[in-house]
Amino acid sequence: MTSPVRLSQRALWAAGQPISDLMARALADPTLISLAAGFVDQQSLPVAATREALAGLCAEESAARAALQYGTTLGYRPLREAIVADLRARDADCPDIALDQVIITAGSNQLLHLVSDTLLNPGDIVLCAAPTYLVYLGTLSNLGVRSVGVAVDQDGVVPEALHETLQQCAARGELSRVKAIYLVPYFDNPCGVTMPLARRREVVEIAKRWSTVQQIHVIADEAYRDLRYEAADVASMLTVDEDGDTVIVTGTFSKSFSPGLRVGWGILPRALVEPVCSQKGNNDFGSPNFNQHLMQALLTRGLFAAHLERIRPVYREKRDALLRALETHFGALDDVQWRVPAGGLYVWLQLPPGISTGPSGGLFDAALQEGVLYVPGEFFYPNLGEPACENTLRLSFGVQALNQLDRGVAALARALHDSAVHDYSAMTSDQSN
Amino acid sequence: MTSPVRLSQRALWAAGQPISDLMARALADPTLISLAAGFVDQQSLPVAATREALAGLCAEESAARAALQYGTTLGYRPLREAIVADLRARDADCPDIALDQVIITAGSNQLLHLVSDTLLNPGDIVLCAAPTYLVYLGTLSNLGVRSVGVAVDQDGVVPEALHETLQQCAARGELSRVKAIYLVPYFDNPCGVTMPLARRREVVEIAKRWSTVQQIHVIADEAYRDLRYEAADVASMLTVDEDGDTVIVTGTFSKSFSPGLRVGWGILPRALVEPVCSQKGNNDFGSPNFNQHLMQALLTRGLFAAHLERIRPVYREKRDALLRALETHFGALDDVQWRVPAGGLYVWLQLPPGISTGPSGGLFDAALQEGVLYVPGEFFYPNLGEPACENTLRLSFGVQALNQLDRGVAALARALHDSAVHDYSAMTSDQSN
Repeated sequence: MTSPVRLSQRALWAAGQPISDLMARALADPTLISLAAGFVDQQSLPVAATREALAGLCAEESAARAALQYGTTLGYRPLREAIVADLRARDADCPDIALDQVIITAGSNQLLHLVSDTLLNPGDIVLCAAPTYLVYLGTLSNLGVRSVGVAVDQDGVVPEALHETLQQCAARGELSRVKAIYLVPYFDNPCGVTMPLARRREVVEIAKRWSTVQQIHVIADEAYRDLRYEAADVASMLTVDEDGDTVIVTGTFSKSFSPGLRVGWGILPRALVEPVCSQKGNNDFGSPNFNQHLMQALLTRGLFAAHLERIRPVYREKRDALLRALETHFGALDDVQWRVPAGGLYVWLQLPPGISTGPSGGLFDAALQEGVLYVPGEFFYPNLGEPACENTLRLSFGVQALNQLDRGVAALARALHDSAVHDYSAMTSDQSN
Repeated sequence: MTSPVRLSQRALWAAGQPISDLMARALADPTLISLAAGFVDQQSLPVAATREALAGLCAEESAARAALQYGTTLGYRPLREAIVADLRARDADCPDIALDQVIITAGSNQLLHLVSDTLLNPGDIVLCAAPTYLVYLGTLSNLGVRSVGVAVDQDGVVPEALHETLQQCAARGELSRVKAIYLVPYFDNPCGVTMPLARRREVVEIAKRWSTVQQIHVIADEAYRDLRYEAADVASMLTVDEDGDTVIVTGTFSKSFSPGLRVGWGILPRALVEPVCSQKGNNDFGSPNFNQHLMQALLTRGLFAAHLERIRPVYREKRDALLRALETHFGALDDVQWRVPAGGLYVWLQLPPGISTGPSGGLFDAALQEGVLYVPGEFFYPNLGEPACENTLRLSFGVQALNQLDRGVAALARALHDSAVHDYSAMTSDQSN
């Protein structure tokens, strides 16, 4: 006799995320050029730096033993000190951060999960840029939380649109359900835009102004801050939160050093320290102590900084190769547009209106046929608010070698041309009129 | 203007777990002999083995890069293969396990959390041994789940009591809320008892028989299996689940090798693979790949097995020292009782009836005063079902050096003698009548 397995409501909410199906299709064909996943460059992974830090860490018996023992739930104190010191060194206006406001997590993803689990009930609302980081949208669905999209421009979320969305929530009597605004302020995933400081301030002020029923937090996912290839740095969202009660910042060494070590962190407003730490305790009892000792050694020995200097030009070159390929293969088409990201791993591509990039839209299959995989733009849109632009897609330049980036974009151009869904040649000739 | 922070229902459920307060008191006095936390022996942590495996892992550039890159959510395949191979080598009756039924997690704790989050809604019921692993009781509270205690004897959960508890649930119309039975079959935390194979079979049969409304899973926390100091091994709970739809097994290398690497695993019934993996994806996107490559190297190079051989005598000696100390300081008292655990890290102590070991009971403070910390027995009891035995406590022998174990137990004996709550000398003279 087999009895039915009854899953939790949460498990049911998590089911059937479209991205996993897409990734399975990618893995099924290893010859495919994937411009989809936001993974990092394989060749420049920091083997030498890791070896050196490990040798240092394991040289002294008692230090090695300490790394192999349990740590605390918040994380290794010297690593948390190094993270705060680094923030202070970058941002003159960095507010006072108590060490217990810093928590070490399994990448920034776990911080996002923990904070969301700590703040959000099913039916609650998180306002997000439209488009935004798709994995976080999955996290919100998993919690039964409503994500509401807010319009963006070349500087990120538009303050007027944010204000208006909050007004609409209030008008519907749902302001008490709005718990957070989620943003990727540096080289936004997927758009590539960076929010200028003045707008960061505006967004935080809006959050504070509307925190009448309860605190509306701003979750600033600063995962890509280190991957800047040009222009001046912008101060963290932390610096524009004078009371220190609104902004939650998360960062990670996954993109800037090694995703395999999986060390991320969060800076929490004081009121959230205990509850988030308690969730962390219930989730995994603390992140691997060994990795935290290793990461601390990498930071204090200058090995992390040296690695960053080494990989920035690598990614800049990749970005430039992707941009050149786009110019070569799409440059003649006025209605194909993209922005130049000053950092990060992504270029957001807008195709002619009427083209649908989704898995059922024709272009997607044509692209697979031509040998390239992308992430359809629609996956990056919250399920409410600002509607999805179906003619968009995200290209990642982190993984592929330079020549593959060009081949991938060429394949995409052929797919667009071939695509059965749309009489593309007719449309382009319309455009030329 | 400061607005109130509104936490999620889950965060509210997690708040105020008594154990954290207790640990804080312990940390406040570093001279205290802690027999409380179930940590591992510091001196025998595997520095040399880790060095050797790291050297092997980092020797070849491309292997090292692979370890530093992202892994999959389920975990590193060769490590999962090694875990299955090890299970097969131990248990002749090991059922067929597909590799995708094996998931790598941050210790066994994360597996317990993920499985619980996948199966349980607020108000659902998990049947547990009374007493049982207190951290898992915290996980259940965090989910708003009801834990119901079932009586135990020297062989673990009593089948008749389990049957009766299920009958009571059915009578209350709540059988549909009973989703799982949680057990620690090897050297139970906190009791130290090991469940014989025949009883394992009985328990699984009871779970199957009562799975009329939906599958009632048996979660077998086999975290301590490797830490056996005497007597023959018992086959895993997996071997008594012929359909493979009932038993979930979790294990970890935290106790047997290094908690700082934080590598645990679970074997899931097929129906749970996708939903648990999906929860894992939403929680942390996969465990650190580097640690998994390292653990695999440790297993396949025989370094893990060699370490186990090295530490078993270390823990056996500690266990014996604790048992000797109990004999010395409590042996004359008929109404103080304990069992000899064949493995694990814990001895469960039963004091005379009327003594309350809890934080407000007098003995606890007296023990702190005398310089020893223990975990009160009441913390290990589910909040429903079988009532807590207030005169019990757990002693861990993993952390302290041999002479400290004796000093700690001597301090506890003094505390019992001093304890203001109870006229202990009167009671013992009663006994001698």
